[in-house]
Amino acid sequence: MAYKDEKLHEEKVFKDPVHRYVHVRDRVIWDLIATPEFQRLRRIKQLGTTNITFHGAEHSRFNHSLGVYEIVRRIIENFQDRPHWNNDQRLLCMAAALLHDLGHGPFSHSFEKVFKLDHEYFTQAIILGDTGVNRVLERVSPGFAQEVADVIGKTHTNKLVVSLISSQIDADRMDYLQRDAYFTGVSYGHFDMERILRVMRPMEDQVVIKSSGMHAVEDYIMSRYQMYWQVYFHPVTRSAEVILTKILHRAKHLYESDYNFTLQPTHFLSFFAGDVSLDEYLKLDESIVHYYFQLWQQEEDEILSDLCERFMNRRLFKYVEFNPNKQVADLLRLIELFKEAGINPDYYLVMDSSSDLPYDFYRPGEEEERLPIHLLMPNGSFKELSRQSDIVESISGKKRTDHKLYFPKDFLYAIKDEKIVQEITGILYSKEME
Amino acid sequence: MAYKDEKLHEEKVFKDPVHRYVHVRDRVIWDLIATPEFQRLRRIKQLGTTNITFHGAEHSRFNHSLGVYEIVRRIIENFQDRPHWNNDQRLLCMAAALLHDLGHGPFSHSFEKVFKLDHEYFTQAIILGDTGVNRVLERVSPGFAQEVADVIGKTHTNKLVVSLISSQIDADRMDYLQRDAYFTGVSYGHFDMERILRVMRPMEDQVVIKSSGMHAVEDYIMSRYQMYWQVYFHPVTRSAEVILTKILHRAKHLYESDYNFTLQPTHFLSFFAGDVSLDEYLKLDESIVHYYFQLWQQEEDEILSDLCERFMNRRLFKYVEFNPNKQVADLLRLIELFKEAGINPDYYLVMDSSSDLPYDFYRPGEEEERLPIHLLMPNGSFKELSRQSDIVESISGKKRTDHKLYFPKDFLYAIKDEKIVQEITGILYSKEME
Amino acid sequence: MAYKDEKLHEEKVFKDPVHRYVHVRDRVIWDLIATPEFQRLRRIKQLGTTNITFHGAEHSRFNHSLGVYEIVRRIIENFQDRPHWNNDQRLLCMAAALLHDLGHGPFSHSFEKVFKLDHEYFTQAIILGDTGVNRVLERVSPGFAQEVADVIGKTHTNKLVVSLISSQIDADRMDYLQRDAYFTGVSYGHFDMERILRVMRPMEDQVVIKSSGMHAVEDYIMSRYQMYWQVYFHPVTRSAEVILTKILHRAKHLYESDYNFTLQPTHFLSFFAGDVSLDEYLKLDESIVHYYFQLWQQEEDEILSDLCERFMNRRLFKYVEFNPNKQVADLLRLIELFKEAGINPDYYLVMDSSSDLPYDFYRPGEEEERLPIHLLMPNGSFKELSRQSDIVESISGKKRTDHKLYFPKDFLYAIKDEKIVQEITGILYSKEME
Amino acid sequence: MAYKDEKLHEEKVFKDPVHRYVHVRDRVIWDLIATPEFQRLRRIKQLGTTNITFHGAEHSRFNHSLGVYEIVRRIIENFQDRPHWNNDQRLLCMAAALLHDLGHGPFSHSFEKVFKLDHEYFTQAIILGDTGVNRVLERVSPGFAQEVADVIGKTHTNKLVVSLISSQIDADRMDYLQRDAYFTGVSYGHFDMERILRVMRPMEDQVVIKSSGMHAVEDYIMSRYQMYWQVYFHPVTRSAEVILTKILHRAKHLYESDYNFTLQPTHFLSFFAGDVSLDEYLKLDESIVHYYFQLWQQEEDEILSDLCERFMNRRLFKYVEFNPNKQVADLLRLIELFKEAGINPDYYLVMDSSSDLPYDFYRPGEEEERLPIHLLMPNGSFKELSRQSDIVESISGKKRTDHKLYFPKDFLYAIKDEKIVQEITGILYSKEME
Repeated sequence: MAYKDEKLHEEKVFKDPVHRYVHVRDRVIWDLIATPEFQRLRRIKQLGTTNITFHGAEHSRFNHSLGVYEIVRRIIENFQDRPHWNNDQRLLCMAAALLHDLGHGPFSHSFEKVFKLDHEYFTQAIILGDTGVNRVLERVSPGFAQEVADVIGKTHTNKLVVSLISSQIDADRMDYLQRDAYFTGVSYGHFDMERILRVMRPMEDQVVIKSSGMHAVEDYIMSRYQMYWQVYFHPVTRSAEVILTKILHRAKHLYESDYNFTLQPTHFLSFFAGDVSLDEYLKLDESIVHYYFQLWQQEEDEILSDLCERFMNRRLFKYVEFNPNKQVADLLRLIELFKEAGINPDYYLVMDSSSDLPYDFYRPGEEEERLPIHLLMPNGSFKELSRQSDIVESISGKKRTDHKLYFPKDFLYAIKDEKIVQEITGILYSKEME
Repeated sequence: MAYKDEKLHEEKVFKDPVHRYVHVRDRVIWDLIATPEFQRLRRIKQLGTTNITFHGAEHSRFNHSLGVYEIVRRIIENFQDRPHWNNDQRLLCMAAALLHDLGHGPFSHSFEKVFKLDHEYFTQAIILGDTGVNRVLERVSPGFAQEVADVIGKTHTNKLVVSLISSQIDADRMDYLQRDAYFTGVSYGHFDMERILRVMRPMEDQVVIKSSGMHAVEDYIMSRYQMYWQVYFHPVTRSAEVILTKILHRAKHLYESDYNFTLQPTHFLSFFAGDVSLDEYLKLDESIVHYYFQLWQQEEDEILSDLCERFMNRRLFKYVEFNPNKQVADLLRLIELFKEAGINPDYYLVMDSSSDLPYDFYRPGEEEERLPIHLLMPNGSFKELSRQSDIVESISGKKRTDHKLYFPKDFLYAIKDEKIVQEITGILYSKEME
Repeated sequence: MAYKDEKLHEEKVFKDPVHRYVHVRDRVIWDLIATPEFQRLRRIKQLGTTNITFHGAEHSRFNHSLGVYEIVRRIIENFQDRPHWNNDQRLLCMAAALLHDLGHGPFSHSFEKVFKLDHEYFTQAIILGDTGVNRVLERVSPGFAQEVADVIGKTHTNKLVVSLISSQIDADRMDYLQRDAYFTGVSYGHFDMERILRVMRPMEDQVVIKSSGMHAVEDYIMSRYQMYWQVYFHPVTRSAEVILTKILHRAKHLYESDYNFTLQPTHFLSFFAGDVSLDEYLKLDESIVHYYFQLWQQEEDEILSDLCERFMNRRLFKYVEFNPNKQVADLLRLIELFKEAGINPDYYLVMDSSSDLPYDFYRPGEEEERLPIHLLMPNGSFKELSRQSDIVESISGKKRTDHKLYFPKDFLYAIKDEKIVQEITGILYSKEME
Repeated sequence: MAYKDEKLHEEKVFKDPVHRYVHVRDRVIWDLIATPEFQRLRRIKQLGTTNITFHGAEHSRFNHSLGVYEIVRRIIENFQDRPHWNNDQRLLCMAAALLHDLGHGPFSHSFEKVFKLDHEYFTQAIILGDTGVNRVLERVSPGFAQEVADVIGKTHTNKLVVSLISSQIDADRMDYLQRDAYFTGVSYGHFDMERILRVMRPMEDQVVIKSSGMHAVEDYIMSRYQMYWQVYFHPVTRSAEVILTKILHRAKHLYESDYNFTLQPTHFLSFFAGDVSLDEYLKLDESIVHYYFQLWQQEEDEILSDLCERFMNRRLFKYVEFNPNKQVADLLRLIELFKEAGINPDYYLVMDSSSDLPYDFYRPGEEEERLPIHLLMPNGSFKELSRQSDIVESISGKKRTDHKLYFPKDFLYAIKDEKIVQEITGILYSKEME
């Protein structure tokens, strides 16, 4: 039997708190899970610093990746005898689902920002490079790895397959909303996925939703909205992320200034230099980051050691609402005052803005071009969701931004010059009192 | 106001998936949570290698410790106006609950076995030593730290307080059963804790259970039984633990043989030497262990690098049922055969035995002397649980042991001498075929 | 001890699937639950004909009433030491919560419409009349029954107390959303009530919500919206209700036409006559209705027996979307055609319209004047919810109406004149095909 | 297409709180659900008087019957390609599952006892008689109704099919444990059904369980045990049942004594006479019973009216532990004393005994001959569950009986002769004081 058609002697299952069981029948999927590159995802948290706020959120990307695979597996099972569905795409869909986050590193968001990396680039690199994953995929058929990479990269010609993995209501999002809700313990994030799966229909170039399932989709959209504001953009989580980002900045700066680290930060060198090989990238998991942060607490550089100590022991920055557009003068004055007080504002006075866009239909040219959700009407026509749903229409395209200014409040207490303290406090807290 | 009576301006809550919310009102508790020693528990998994089997089980000891605190807080709330309850013990109970696992290190079980350590010793050391935790406790009142240590060490004179933290039905067990069930996703581990809390009654020297709540307690005992066999003693988890243990053994052996490590294993040296200071102990969290295991994959020593590679990439040992008592000759022969085949049996042929004792009443002289569960009968007398409950009686004191022999099956395929392979296979699998 | 302060020797609990346990400590509450008028609520379904669509929805108003009581009990527990809260109102609040639905009869909606009744009138009548409930309340203190009636009737001078029972986010709504979701099994209807209870604050004349809890309230509003459209206005449920209404109309008509019922419909006579005494009202529970409907299946009057048979055996009317405003001519023509075909359109061609208004702030003069939800801002001011929440603003005040035309499809098959059938079908289904 | 193979145009679903969705694809199943005899199950509570204790337990037999069907449907789906499974039995299994409780009447237990009825007899009668159900079944093929009746009656030659519906771990039990737990809200009754379904294997003459699933089965057995003692045998529920039984006895007695009922109890006459036709049986649902009980509250016979008033208004009998075997003299004396006090002991002094047998293997001659559970061992052999499982072994075959004596405590207060009261109280409560 061809490798691509090989079934395991007995179906294997993973116990999964969200989907109850993840079922694996195909040898290819089983072999992909066993690769070192996929196992590495066990050492990378799905939600980065969120566990600082929600202590349950310690689940890994391994966890989520299996979940996305399982959802796609179930969708395909439902598609089996439907028109427009070509079962030859089955393995492609499942492999792409399983591997879609393969290129994530530890605390992706911060690392990508500071070191100008892109996890999607590394996902492609792992799939196409000299890796265990690539060897499994190429055994399926020459060029299969490229196909999987194309689906994940949204450049594959089969748009139906792409839409299963990347759209406004893809398996990725359905899994992470439920999973992140489960592990954080929040009561948002629940929607009737079983119903959504039942009303999904494959069409020529996308998955659509039977209009009778519209309310379940509304619920999903609302879950997303709530999860963004309640979990993903939580100000305390962002405080930890702000500190993390500043640690990376500082370490890079020290490296560039020929600072003499007590222990050579081998794992980071290529990141500092801006030239990261696949091998170096794969080695940097969360354990390694924590190892260095622990060491750096003992570094001579006060900023680096202070920031690391804060991150490891959760002594976070405090924050106030702050609108950088309307309060330019305030911000400039604060920077000055911090300097006067001997606190480096580059590291200790940080603006952070979050914005969501819970549902949006396609707008050419946008960075994240997710496919919109189409409803299949009783008469066979399609309608874009927000044209049919009041609720979705009302939140569609409304970008909401939340600005916060972060700083170490404990430092303020240590400022000797009372006048400086008063002026700083005045600016920071006057707004709140209104 | 005295520090011990200080309340937070506004109650703080942690979102907890198991108890919904963990409530903190006391400044002392809040300050204890903020110490570096307590925050360190975030970097130590509650269930060690279990996440290798149940991918959801990535929760930390931080998680569990908050949960135990919360249960004790609720119990005490119920005790408020009851006879035998002295509310002066409130803070003592809650602090002991919060800190009871403070001395756990990464993969405690294996580390303790290999390096002859005892996490309870370190719990005491952290509470009584020069630490943030100690400073908070001593601020409550001189000697308070010692009291907390005594409660955790079960030597405190107030037996009622001790029994809240350590008995057959203490807050510790009630939390971990539910928490581990939640994060693994298994359907065992559920019982009606709310009911148990309602029927708990403080007595002079222990907590007892009103007999009307007996069935809820039976359910709890059964949960425990099921969790032991389904989760805690899972053979795949034990395989990862076996490898971990062997890595530590090997590294220690190499160190003692003056092997030249590529990078000096600084964090491990005092462990190898058998003389671990508190400071060194606290530095060794799971990240550090993973860091070294990653490095050691590149070590020249083939056994060390092979075992580390297995552990990190989940290439586990396989296992067969094996009774070391009845199959002595088999085992000796296997050892010989492994040697002939050039496989070091010290590292690659490992017996592992698990045994549980889901409920037992006090037997003087036993290692783990947990207090038995007493029922409070309608007429005011007490009855030990197993004398009243058929189910509990039936499993009480029945020690069940499960023996497994672990080995790397992939190595067998590589043995050139066909006869050796056949004999090994014959011994290992003959039993299974019966 | 005064009756109003009497506590039960030991707290009593009801096992409740939604709130886990309902706790009763006060003798007055315990005695109210034991009255025949309250026990009667066991024989009245919370959701009328909804169980025809969702077979789990068989829960009674008894069930819900206990739930509302429990929520109010918990709210008050949280209010204990807060400013603006006067604990003398405790019993009043709990009694009003428990009794707020006391006047509901079987299938209230239909009965009220056909017989021009008002369940709120009967709630007052039971509380103030010669009943067990009244006797318990008057034992608390003379005039207490009137106070309870006033709170339920929203005329009590203590607006804070009224707002606990009747506002946009009162205990009534919080209970029924969760309860109806639980028993139907739909995945909507969940929101974080525990959080909402924590952020409720008593003010002089209303309960307000701390603004930090806004997202939980949004979730509650969305639950309501979803429950309305997914459960309460479900077209199949409305079909059963349409038939029920027509049965009552027909029976009344027959009574007025001096039709000779096989068995005198004793329980219904005062309803037909439009002069229902309290005693007669209390006797008519769902069992009695079912009893008559079973008998009436054998009545000679074909319309009555057909409708009853349909109701009992779930042979419902089918429906099509139909806009009575735009399709006046169609409707008139259908009436004519039905008559020509010998089908009485008064009973067999029924327009039914549903409309919701998921959240609205106070508009003087509206029938249902529920108090709006106010947020308590960090600076101590209040803000009406929809001014702060995008989502709520977007659905606020948007009345959405759903029109359906109901008819027995099976009757159409029996029409002999093919031309009539075609014209009827043409009108009914042309719209759908567009 | 043959009727038996007809599929619905689009799969229909019922929202079910326990199994999420019940799926119907076959026209035959759809038609069976639509019959009046099956719809009648909506008016019969699954748990009789249990809702008197657990107010959530208002779910109907309709509810449960759909659930059993759904479980069997899922089991068969898993069996599809397995040896020993003949898919021709599919419809037979599903129909038998759906209809297995068809003959239940209101409060079956009490009615069967008083009127010497047998619901299994009526199940057969409905399936084979002149009914809607029979017409649907006979349309499948002549003799199909008989086959379904045989499966339910356990006389069908295909033992594998029988064991799906009636064995120690059949679909019936798996549904009711979970469903009754859900609706009562107790925390027992949960087990991992999904896992059990996965490890079920069809064999020649029974369904067996792969031994790797033993722990899930243990959990199921324990659930059963707990549900029996916590829910099914709850002493308050039994109190309501005792009263109900006495009402039926009294009414029958009055009928036999030519008592003149205010309204002729038409629906009961054939029950009193001991000659119930199918038609009369089907007419007697719970509504009808409630109707008469309401009327009888006004009857002149004091015993009948008192008992009915108690039942309707939940003024139950109290109870004490009482061993009829050891306390014969006590019981006789109590009877005498009741008579002396003018209280009829035939109706007001009632012994009630419950006993469970949570798991038992086949014993010839026993009344309820359920097939034992067999494990399929790795080597292909079978082992009876209790020989492999300690827990099951420990509770296997242990019959436990709980005796209670019921009486109206309020009557005792009304006895004028103080000495009689004291003696009665002495006997009843002396035991409790020990």
